[in-house]
Amino acid sequence: MTTLLNKTLAAIKPLDKNAMEKAAARQDILIKPQGALGRLEEISIRLAGIQRKAIPVIKNKAIITMAGDHGVVAEKVGNFPQEVTPQMVLNFVHGGAAINVISRQIGARVVVVNMGVAGDLPANIPVVNKLVARGTKNLARGPAMTEAQAIQSIEAGIEVVNSEIDKGLDIVGTGDMGIGNTTPSAAICAVMTGQSVAKVTGRGTGVSDEQLQHKIEVIERAIAVNKPDPKNGIDVLAKLGGFEIGGIAGVIIGAAARGVPVVVDGFISGAAALIAEAIAPQSREYMFLGHLSVEPGHKIMADKLGLKPIVTLDLRLGEGTGAAIGIFIAETSAKILAEMATFGEAGVSESKE
Amino acid sequence: MTTLLNKTLAAIKPLDKNAMEKAAARQDILIKPQGALGRLEEISIRLAGIQRKAIPVIKNKAIITMAGDHGVVAEKVGNFPQEVTPQMVLNFVHGGAAINVISRQIGARVVVVNMGVAGDLPANIPVVNKLVARGTKNLARGPAMTEAQAIQSIEAGIEVVNSEIDKGLDIVGTGDMGIGNTTPSAAICAVMTGQSVAKVTGRGTGVSDEQLQHKIEVIERAIAVNKPDPKNGIDVLAKLGGFEIGGIAGVIIGAAARGVPVVVDGFISGAAALIAEAIAPQSREYMFLGHLSVEPGHKIMADKLGLKPIVTLDLRLGEGTGAAIGIFIAETSAKILAEMATFGEAGVSESKE
Repeated sequence: MTTLLNKTLAAIKPLDKNAMEKAAARQDILIKPQGALGRLEEISIRLAGIQRKAIPVIKNKAIITMAGDHGVVAEKVGNFPQEVTPQMVLNFVHGGAAINVISRQIGARVVVVNMGVAGDLPANIPVVNKLVARGTKNLARGPAMTEAQAIQSIEAGIEVVNSEIDKGLDIVGTGDMGIGNTTPSAAICAVMTGQSVAKVTGRGTGVSDEQLQHKIEVIERAIAVNKPDPKNGIDVLAKLGGFEIGGIAGVIIGAAARGVPVVVDGFISGAAALIAEAIAPQSREYMFLGHLSVEPGHKIMADKLGLKPIVTLDLRLGEGTGAAIGIFIAETSAKILAEMATFGEAGVSESKE
Repeated sequence: MTTLLNKTLAAIKPLDKNAMEKAAARQDILIKPQGALGRLEEISIRLAGIQRKAIPVIKNKAIITMAGDHGVVAEKVGNFPQEVTPQMVLNFVHGGAAINVISRQIGARVVVVNMGVAGDLPANIPVVNKLVARGTKNLARGPAMTEAQAIQSIEAGIEVVNSEIDKGLDIVGTGDMGIGNTTPSAAICAVMTGQSVAKVTGRGTGVSDEQLQHKIEVIERAIAVNKPDPKNGIDVLAKLGGFEIGGIAGVIIGAAARGVPVVVDGFISGAAALIAEAIAPQSREYMFLGHLSVEPGHKIMADKLGLKPIVTLDLRLGEGTGAAIGIFIAETSAKILAEMATFGEAGVSESKE
């Protein structure tokens, strides 16, 4: 492991229990029955622990959407052509994608990163260039990338999030774009959760029954060929991953090291979260799960990570869309803690219980 | 029935199928796999049918929070004293309650209505005065109100929402405040869904096992004493209801008549929605369920209304808090439809499927 990754891993601290206790104590004196705001209370308390502030602040927000291509598309695992990856990157830049719409609504900036797009992108567009290679290799026939590339992709994610934190960032959401990327994500999920490939593999952008069966076989072959070590996140990423998956894992690890909460998006971001947790177990405490995807493996990932989704809206788009909605609700929880009156301030009688 | 209610009921039309078809067709050409935004797509299509616009607009938002007191507190069904109702009304006015915080975040105005607060409220505060009486009578010993008062409370809700629509309103959320009001709500739920009182009664602001058993007995007695007709919404409201519950039912019916979507909050608003549906079955099509409360009867109400909650965050506060979060997500869905690029506009390749 190289210097940036090691340094970042060493910087991840346990959550600030003192800040969490103060936040929990404040929740109990706000003018409402104790616990009546349910998960909003729970989220605000964890935000306090992550930001190391009794009253967490969510003002500067970003979605980091990472794009990469996948050699496994040669196996015909989906229906959209690979040219869609750079086309969608342009759309992120032009503001016409779903993630742009939701980010405008929640007041978050969208940071688009080229981790490994196979096709050409115009020069001089506002895309962070962290290109590791123009697409991974076909994981059904051997490792998707080298171990050096896996580390490079994670460190790229750390660099991107560090640079955003330097600009001011109170919470970050992860997002992905990459034609074919439910295939590596399902492979990572199967290996790291120990569940069968059939159980964790879904229809991605919408494949037929027959195509789904084929996709399962491709993933089974990929695991058999590569024999990744489930305990070694970098090995799993190198053998089965994608550059955007490594990048997202880096964003998670980097955010954790700097005390910034990370809202993890759907299935692809979930695969990255599994990698991040394997490399940095404590990073899990810094993660929120924005939403529960309809991809069947996502629930299995969530259970493995011990994370409950903030919303369940049957999304399966990626880009960071579910993370953005989760950020909105995390912000609600922080505002509640900061802005609600206490029983004392408000002159409201307490429960006689 | 009097003129305003009858006129309002007559004005409720079926949803605009044409607008819904156009919205659905547009969802299918936006740059995403078909259906990939799940419930956001479904919500946007129903908004189109309600607003009778192919691309619905959500800009002007309000939460109407209705306050009322309940004679059944004499039976000691909860732990907070009745004086909390006017205290909380003052807090809504001062902006220190949870509903104020969330409404500021989503850019909604909070309209506070005195439907039947028992205690004194200062003059000259920005509270809409629709006082029917200073609290209902004890429903465990006879009807909570007269039939005339039931109609008056519904019509007050219609007047309030009409006045807000006249000021500009694209979506409305319902909210409640009233010490003791989970008791009438559970009673209404049991009668209108046909479920046992034990199954639909919860802990409200947090009662003990023993208190819960007592609350169930009080509600069973109320139903036995009053014998409400489950098919007659006004009869159920008069015998078991609250003035704020009638007011919320009026908001729902009034909004439906004017083609304004209504996001229904939790358990108390759900009771009002059951009343509204019994009086105006088509009003159901205009309702969204903001969230699923932890009150066990809420799921039973939702099933009876055929509504899926937008979020499930274990809230049990009322005030309109869950409705406000639901409004945010409904707005997301409308913005997606309005602002996302189409495949044609964006030059993105479609699925080969």
